[in-house]
Amino acid sequence: MKTYLDCIPCFFRQALETARLAGAGPLIQRKVLMDLAAVLPDFSMKASPPEMARIVRNLVYKYTGRKDAYAALKRKSNELALRVYPRLKDRLKNSEDPLRTAVELAVAGNIIDYGAKNNIDVEAELTRILDNEESSIAVESRDLFDYKGFRECLARACKIVYLADNAGETVFDRALIEQIMEFDHLKEIVYVVKSQPAINDALYEDALTSGIDSIATIVDSGSDAPGTVLSLCSREFKQLFKTADMVISKGQGNFEALSGKAKREVFFLFMVKCPVIARDVGGQIGNIVLYRKAGKK
Amino acid sequence: MKTYLDCIPCFFRQALETARLAGAGPLIQRKVLMDLAAVLPDFSMKASPPEMARIVRNLVYKYTGRKDAYAALKRKSNELALRVYPRLKDRLKNSEDPLRTAVELAVAGNIIDYGAKNNIDVEAELTRILDNEESSIAVESRDLFDYKGFRECLARACKIVYLADNAGETVFDRALIEQIMEFDHLKEIVYVVKSQPAINDALYEDALTSGIDSIATIVDSGSDAPGTVLSLCSREFKQLFKTADMVISKGQGNFEALSGKAKREVFFLFMVKCPVIARDVGGQIGNIVLYRKAGKK
Repeated sequence: MKTYLDCIPCFFRQALETARLAGAGPLIQRKVLMDLAAVLPDFSMKASPPEMARIVRNLVYKYTGRKDAYAALKRKSNELALRVYPRLKDRLKNSEDPLRTAVELAVAGNIIDYGAKNNIDVEAELTRILDNEESSIAVESRDLFDYKGFRECLARACKIVYLADNAGETVFDRALIEQIMEFDHLKEIVYVVKSQPAINDALYEDALTSGIDSIATIVDSGSDAPGTVLSLCSREFKQLFKTADMVISKGQGNFEALSGKAKREVFFLFMVKCPVIARDVGGQIGNIVLYRKAGKK
Repeated sequence: MKTYLDCIPCFFRQALETARLAGAGPLIQRKVLMDLAAVLPDFSMKASPPEMARIVRNLVYKYTGRKDAYAALKRKSNELALRVYPRLKDRLKNSEDPLRTAVELAVAGNIIDYGAKNNIDVEAELTRILDNEESSIAVESRDLFDYKGFRECLARACKIVYLADNAGETVFDRALIEQIMEFDHLKEIVYVVKSQPAINDALYEDALTSGIDSIATIVDSGSDAPGTVLSLCSREFKQLFKTADMVISKGQGNFEALSGKAKREVFFLFMVKCPVIARDVGGQIGNIVLYRKAGKK
């Protein structure tokens, strides 16, 4: 996805948030915003929004010396997710279609991120989602939730690349991966994190804390943007991405970075969090999406 | 009120919205945003946010030749408000304290503006507010809704200056002014609009369309910002503002412009629409506020 003009106000909002989380005072916060204003004209609108997030992170680092402004927030997210994990497993045990439920909950886990930015009581919201055994929480639309396609591809795939999104959500990913292994324990799953701090995106240690190492190989993509920006990725990752039987991409950031660039089929799992993405996929904010993007021939 | 760093993302959002409403294509929209980024470092944070809105309006004018991007939206707001006016009057007729209800509804009328920007069904929302005869819709807090102080000041005042906010809301102002005249028909009320298009702020013709001329004298402040920025106002207005017995200021824009600058007592009536203002007054987004600011001795 390219950058839309509507993303620009958000860049400033994010820069301010990052600077504050890094402990910058008002003067430094202002400097970061003014530097962002200065580099904006040179930022190509063909680049994806996560590429700007990377520039913002580097600006904040320049002034504060802190590269991982979200460290505390990530730790909190991991703890919260681990706390609800047993309830998550219960919910799956009682589901008629545990794989589908695991997919939906893996996306719903994204509320940790969204909630943190919107002052929602995340634990209460997660409990509400986990206690709701009534029906599917995803949109009933083949275009926005192609579970059939996902299941068919999964049945055939041996090697699966799973692109992580945020810390905390990683615990929900673990539950989904466990479900996939239950579906077929011979799958080989490679779980991909970012190579350096990028907003609250999961790093190697977050995957480890979440217990992913017991069911998947953890690697990093080489991308230090909060999205899998292929041009920033390592040669090894790009090879892996190209040759895997199936790619599951979590989160809006990975969707932004990959949706216009990837030549292969990708299953994008994310919660729609802004009007630009809502328009792009034809959904609404808050939608739980499983979006299959066909590969280019 | 000074400009907070949190206002900066909003400046970009507003610039984009104004450019689009003025019919600018993506290239011109981008030019407006980049020009805004270029002037940002020179904008004093001691200035109030409406002063930036004025700069944005002028940038959009430079590229599109349209100074009144919100003309159609304002027309629509006036029509909508005139449509609900009879219901508004009914509501007041049935109220135990019609003056208080008129004050509350005059602020609630601000939902026209807020709703337009947040895709709320404004007519449905207004109907809901007007049909709610149960209780007060304002916050039960002397600090945030000083109705007693308002009523006392009103009882003593002969000459009242009423600063208008948005088009459409003007019809709600009319209902409040009619109620004030019922309270005491000898009051002299001067209704103050902006001198030039400023977002969707009411101009002379909006006050006229709303029927204000039958109960008040309509003047303009000289300010072409979406707030009564005293340094931009005419000498005549400043004299009027200084000498009036009572000043009623409607809307967040007027609060932003006046709250730190006015030396006299002002009754600010507005709906809290952003986190910065919420923090400033100690309220929450959506609060219906009647905030008495004492004059400086």
